[in-house]
Order: sequence, then structure tokens, then C-alpha cells
Amino acid sequence: MEMQYKERSYGGEGRRRRTDLVLRFLAMALTLSAAVILGLNQQSTTVTLTIVPSLPPVNLPVTAKWLHMSAMVYFVIANAIVCSYTAVSLILMLATKGGNKNVSLMITILDLVMVALLFSAIGATGAVGLIGYKGNSHVHWEKVCNVFDKFCHRVAAAMVLSFIGSMAYLLLIVLATFNTYTKF
Amino acid sequence: MEMQYKERSYGGEGRRRRTDLVLRFLAMALTLSAAVILGLNQQSTTVTLTIVPSLPPVNLPVTAKWLHMSAMVYFVIANAIVCSYTAVSLILMLATKGGNKNVSLMITILDLVMVALLFSAIGATGAVGLIGYKGNSHVHWEKVCNVFDKFCHRVAAAMVLSFIGSMAYLLLIVLATFNTYTKF
Repeated sequence: MEMQYKERSYGGEGRRRRTDLVLRFLAMALTLSAAVILGLNQQSTTVTLTIVPSLPPVNLPVTAKWLHMSAMVYFVIANAIVCSYTAVSLILMLATKGGNKNVSLMITILDLVMVALLFSAIGATGAVGLIGYKGNSHVHWEKVCNVFDKFCHRVAAAMVLSFIGSMAYLLLIVLATFNTYTKF
Repeated sequence: MEMQYKERSYGGEGRRRRTDLVLRFLAMALTLSAAVILGLNQQSTTVTLTIVPSLPPVNLPVTAKWLHMSAMVYFVIANAIVCSYTAVSLILMLATKGGNKNVSLMITILDLVMVALLFSAIGATGAVGLIGYKGNSHVHWEKVCNVFDKFCHRVAAAMVLSFIGSMAYLLLIVLATFNTYTKF
């Protein structure tokens, strides 16, 4: 009976470890994709401007880059940090086989910091992206997504990927918390 | 010897519970203050505009409100949700005296959701606030904090309060994790 319980307990522990590794790998892939998609995002186009009504309109070349907006720079850096940390945590998890209590505790606390970092970056890019998409008449900030459509679509794609990555991180902490709570 | 250990253990548990309650109360007060400061934030002023060079400049009345910016609406709602949840969690913690395992687990998971909510709101308001303070020449979004100085100072104050509140939440989860890890 005790043997059976122990086997079941070890089986549960192994399943939890596999889920942890899969979620971590998923988070790494997603944050890497988000950082690369936004980091390579650039769109050049031309806008037609009428400067003097009596003269024909002028075509002006314009370029949108992630580097032009602080929130997007923060997004790329935050996702790159989370991706690098996830790679290190994966190596640590595999090296210690999840058996070292201090390493597990440190990883859970750092996972939490990553959640904070990712959500603040998603919030920042989301807020700026919304103004880019809809504009804000109160402060006369004109929308830009009607000109830079491809650029905006890629920002949205990077945000969705990063959001799924951050949900994977939330699940990782819930899993760790659930595991430790059910142990005592 | 065993008695001594038990006493020490209960003493540590009591101290942990008091720290938890203090942090929770602090987070509630800070998020409430942040929501109220930004929710009551409004500034009316006049700007001088020269429409036709041959005519004298015109004074135009302008008003800044938190309702004018989606990121700030999100910030007020997020802080109000976190404040309300913290009040409920405080009541639950006092009612169960921290002894119910399922309630503690549920509270830790919801604390985590609050961290995500708060950090996304701080990121969103921070990104919009930075554009308001510095402007963005690439997309021709002019800075507005030179006109609405008091409004911007209050946004910054609300952000600092909310950030300290979210750090209290981070500490709460670290404390809960540390506590459960050291128990097995």
C-alpha cells in the first residue's frame, strides 16, 4: 500500500517536472519569437502631402522602426531578458533534476520577476499600440497604423506571442505553488 | 527540545502571518490612493494659439482628464480591482486565521493575477506618460506635460504608489513561496 502510494507520488512528481520543462520551453520559444518579430520590424512607405494648395502634392518617404518608440524598445529588451533567463533556468532544472530545494525556490522567485517584467512590457506596448491604431483626439496624437499597417500587424503578433509566454510563466508559478502546498 | 522547536516554529508562523497582513494592508492603502489620485486627476488651463499671423493670438481653454486616455482608465480600474480584492483577501485571512490550506492556495494564485494586472497597468500608464512628458517626433505626437504640468505630476505620483503596492504583492508571493518551501 505504502509502496503503491510512493510510486504514485513519484509518478506525479515526474509528470509535474515534465509539465514544468514543457511550459519553460514554450515560454522561451514564445518570448524569443516576440523579441525577434518586433526587433526586426520595420516598414518604409510614402505619404502624400499637400503643402501649398496651388502646387501638386509631394510624396514623402517615411519609415516606422521599433527603435522609434521607447515602449517597443522596452518590449524587445524585456522579452530578450525573459528568453535568456528561461534558457538558464531550463539548464539549471535539467542539471539539478528539480531535486535541489534552494535552486527551486530561487527559480520560482525569479519566475515571478519575469511575470512582472513581461506584463509591464505588454502593457506598455499595448497602450502605445492602441494610440497608434486609434489615435487620441484629446492630445492631438494622430493614428499611424493606417499608414504603417504591416508594422502594426507585426506589433500585434509579437504582443500575442509574448502574452501566451507570460501565461505559461503564470502557469509555472501556479504549478510550483500547487506542488508545494499539496506537499504539507 | 521538540517543544522548543515547536515554539520557535509557531513563533515564525505568527510573524509570517503578521508580515502578510501588514503587506496586504499596505498594498490595499497604496492601490486605493493610486486609484483615487488618478481618478480625481483633472487640470484646466489655457493655451495661446496664433491662427492668423496678422491677428492677435487667441486664448483657448483646454482640459486634461484621466478619462481621455485609455491607459489611465485601465490603470484606475486595475488599481480599484486590486484594492477590492485585497480587502476581501484580508477578511478571508483574518476569518480563517491563515490555517485553511485551500484558501491560502487560492489567495496565492489570485495574488499572482493581481501582480500581472498591476504591472500591466503601470507599464501602460508609464508608456503613455513618457510620450506625454517627452513627445515622439517620429510619429509627430507632441508632448503635453509642458501644458498640463500638475496633471502629469499626479500621474507620476499615482504610478509610484501603485508600483510600491505591486512590490508589496511580489513580497507577499515570495513570502508564501518561501514559507511553503521551508516546510518540507
